[in-house]
Amino acid sequence: MTFIERLAARSRALDSLVCVGLDPDFRRHRVEEVAPFLRDIIAATMPYAACYKPNVAFFEQWGIPGLRALEAVLEAIPGEVPVIGDAKRGDIGSTAEAYARALFEAWGFDAVTVNPYLGRDSVEPFLAYHDRGVYLLCRTSNPGAGDFQSLELSDGTRLYEHVATTVAGWGANAGLVVGATAPAELARVRELVPGLPLLIPGVGSQGGTPEEVIGAAGYRHGYVLVNASRSIVYAGAGPEAAANAARALRDALRAARNGS
Amino acid sequence: MTFIERLAARSRALDSLVCVGLDPDFRRHRVEEVAPFLRDIIAATMPYAACYKPNVAFFEQWGIPGLRALEAVLEAIPGEVPVIGDAKRGDIGSTAEAYARALFEAWGFDAVTVNPYLGRDSVEPFLAYHDRGVYLLCRTSNPGAGDFQSLELSDGTRLYEHVATTVAGWGANAGLVVGATAPAELARVRELVPGLPLLIPGVGSQGGTPEEVIGAAGYRHGYVLVNASRSIVYAGAGPEAAANAARALRDALRAARNGS
Repeated sequence: MTFIERLAARSRALDSLVCVGLDPDFRRHRVEEVAPFLRDIIAATMPYAACYKPNVAFFEQWGIPGLRALEAVLEAIPGEVPVIGDAKRGDIGSTAEAYARALFEAWGFDAVTVNPYLGRDSVEPFLAYHDRGVYLLCRTSNPGAGDFQSLELSDGTRLYEHVATTVAGWGANAGLVVGATAPAELARVRELVPGLPLLIPGVGSQGGTPEEVIGAAGYRHGYVLVNASRSIVYAGAGPEAAANAARALRDALRAARNGS
Repeated sequence: MTFIERLAARSRALDSLVCVGLDPDFRRHRVEEVAPFLRDIIAATMPYAACYKPNVAFFEQWGIPGLRALEAVLEAIPGEVPVIGDAKRGDIGSTAEAYARALFEAWGFDAVTVNPYLGRDSVEPFLAYHDRGVYLLCRTSNPGAGDFQSLELSDGTRLYEHVATTVAGWGANAGLVVGATAPAELARVRELVPGLPLLIPGVGSQGGTPEEVIGAAGYRHGYVLVNASRSIVYAGAGPEAAANAARALRDALRAARNGS
């Protein structure tokens, strides 16, 4: 089974589009607390999580001890639950092969995020793992996303639009990262490439709403995956608050489907 | 002292523009061989190396044992020799802070490479370390570099040109990565932003020549840094071959200065 088939099956079984981002905050934890803390969050949010997404930056910030914590976190996620390694790597061919080996083999992620700026040959080593997923950054959720991504090209399209249509020709396991904070751009991407899986960060702490996301992207198991990190993991004290936040996001996305 | 002052001082003292890329090949080594192998390379090439540049991908490919090897490699480089962490990270604000902490504090690199696609706020956490250097990817050395980087914008400029002039306004510690494999683009970048430090990969195995690089970018200690990885590290059997290759590159760059 491909990554997207596995993701769609779990998303359908739970009727949930929720991806839980596992991003431990440097200021809140000592490194030895990270794995026990996140293992409790994982256990509590499992009924609502179509997928988990650790961002490796938040483990690398503690150096090798942080990566040991990531190792322990990944061991706590059952094999049938898809895990996206949010790494946003991007490098030239032989180096991209090394990153693909790191993320897919050493870490064993089911999918990864990749930066497209270096062009197709920098992405092919990831795409060559046909059973894994590769989400290319298209229109990100941060305030400065427009600095380059929204530049107008000589043919009148925007750079992020060109990235979307280009990536659509790169392989059956390619998808896109499009932020919830820019609903107009999200709707435009969905219109341009209706068949591509989308990973949508930026709801919750960053300000995107479930209604805007589903209104723009539709509600489709596996093909629309909505990530929230801080607003779930740090919803309150302890794993129950995280479970409640994950369930509430699942329900809000379901409600937006029914309302749209 | 800033990174660029330290780099320029060493580059001037050795009269060398050579950066030695430390990229261990997965097929040639078991992980436990990596650190001893590279420590010998470092000892042999030290008289010719203005700087070293491990690409973290080539250590991550072995997982945590590979990162232990990177740790041992960094310990073998004397504190006064600048080291660039070639990581090409790029993520939104709070995540970029975590990557900056990882690369500058956990790993202790003197400078890093960063991908600009996510915009200015994704780079600011790196630039906030004023004594470190931040090289932004501009025009890379790989065959697919032009896929996005050479797109023509609506004002007639190319994306990589826009990146170069934009980055020039981002801070005193920003520089650019421009590949030696595209001498016309390298000359164009030098013309657009004469004051920016350039990190120039792509000579040696990738095909750029010292004459083309110096002809396009000039010969300037600290502001022009020419990286070769495989063509030095794997020049032959053992560290003497690497030393010879590094010296030959230093000499070819010097000769190109005199010839230009």
